Amino acid sequence: MIDLHFVRTPNGHKASIMLEELGVPYRSRVYDMLKGEHLTADFRALNPNCRLPVIVDNEPAGGGAPLPVFESGAILIYLAEKYGRLLPGDARRRSVALQWLMWQMSGLGPMHGQAHHFVRYCPEPIDYPLQRYRNEAVRLLHVLEHRLSEAEYLADEYSIADIACWPWIRAARAIELDIAAFPAIKRWYKAIDARDAVRRGAELKMSDASLAGKPRLDAEQWSNLFGANMLGAVRD
Amino acid sequence: MIDLHFVRTPNGHKASIMLEELGVPYRSRVYDMLKGEHLTADFRALNPNCRLPVIVDNEPAGGGAPLPVFESGAILIYLAEKYGRLLPGDARRRSVALQWLMWQMSGLGPMHGQAHHFVRYCPEPIDYPLQRYRNEAVRLLHVLEHRLSEAEYLADEYSIADIACWPWIRAARAIELDIAAFPAIKRWYKAIDARDAVRRGAELKMSDASLAGKPRLDAEQWSNLFGANMLGAVRD
Repeated sequence: MIDLHFVRTPNGHKASIMLEELGVPYRSRVYDMLKGEHLTADFRALNPNCRLPVIVDNEPAGGGAPLPVFESGAILIYLAEKYGRLLPGDARRRSVALQWLMWQMSGLGPMHGQAHHFVRYCPEPIDYPLQRYRNEAVRLLHVLEHRLSEAEYLADEYSIADIACWPWIRAARAIELDIAAFPAIKRWYKAIDARDAVRRGAELKMSDASLAGKPRLDAEQWSNLFGANMLGAVRD
Repeated sequence: MIDLHFVRTPNGHKASIMLEELGVPYRSRVYDMLKGEHLTADFRALNPNCRLPVIVDNEPAGGGAPLPVFESGAILIYLAEKYGRLLPGDARRRSVALQWLMWQMSGLGPMHGQAHHFVRYCPEPIDYPLQRYRNEAVRLLHVLEHRLSEAEYLADEYSIADIACWPWIRAARAIELDIAAFPAIKRWYKAIDARDAVRRGAELKMSDASLAGKPRLDAEQWSNLFGANMLGAVRD
């Protein structure tokens, strides 16, 4: 059995979609980050970075004690290698999938994430970072559009690279980006959206609601997500 | 022979250090990003995201045509797997190395990168993003310190996870962070700094100079790094 420590974010949905695609048994624990449930010593022992998602594999590849795996990209690789699926085997195709996975981890996720912050969480609109991250968010959509104009999926077949990117594209409307202007992305998005495992893993109804409007956080909730509480949890 | 398309940045140095550690023959081409040398159609064919570094393996694992690999994290995995070094083989230790590699790719690199932007490149100081990214940069150093207090290296042995993080820690002084306050990081930093391959790959003298002061960019140089020219290069 795999334990999924989960939060309803694009990164969380990468892990839940992957587990549904593999069809392996897992149980989820949903964290309320506004309450600071990710800032406990118990959770820090699973992920020293205090971020979600994390999986704990109670029957890990290679045996031994339960294995915690943090970072959504590392979770995808670990599960793909354990079950021999969704990451091509030969060196060239495998590298193409890992290149796009890394592009998601280092670019699409962090930069769209900053756009989400300045559009939705920053108390006051600030022109420079709003423009900086919107421009970069759009630039990355052009990169994705170009790739998906020449290939059906990001790698040579449906893979963990698509699973990593799709939840972030789904969330793009929250930063006022419309993929209707990107026909290849739209085609790819719909094909993945139609997969049963993706529908199960992505819990569409809930997330539609969670993306609407600008969240109102009190001081404690803010601190749990972005402030002194988040920093304090990793100080020794 | 491997071609290294290189720029003197922390991400560029991950690739050069890795190639020096492996001791495999390579030739480098150094790009001048201020002149927009990364914004050509030829370079876009190697990396649709128009960022550096990229390697092209002219004798790729598995044979066939020359293989371009973009994203520094994907370069490290590709080379580690091709040469069977610097990434542990068994599933548990391998996953630990990949978790810390992903932590660098999604956290340390992008967030320290944003701090670099607002400290060094943003035309005017803006309090909110300066504080946001400095806080997160410090928080990530605490995470690293905690790990390196319990382990000699990020994984169970020196690996691509260390090679990914080390150049970003070297650059931390440019965002006014001093690792003297972090004894475990300092011990780890020095041990890696003493490696011959790291010294060759990291070109210490040059980079010391490039980290000093706030760069002065004219409008065209700014656009090549952050503005309309960078966006235009990936539009079809």
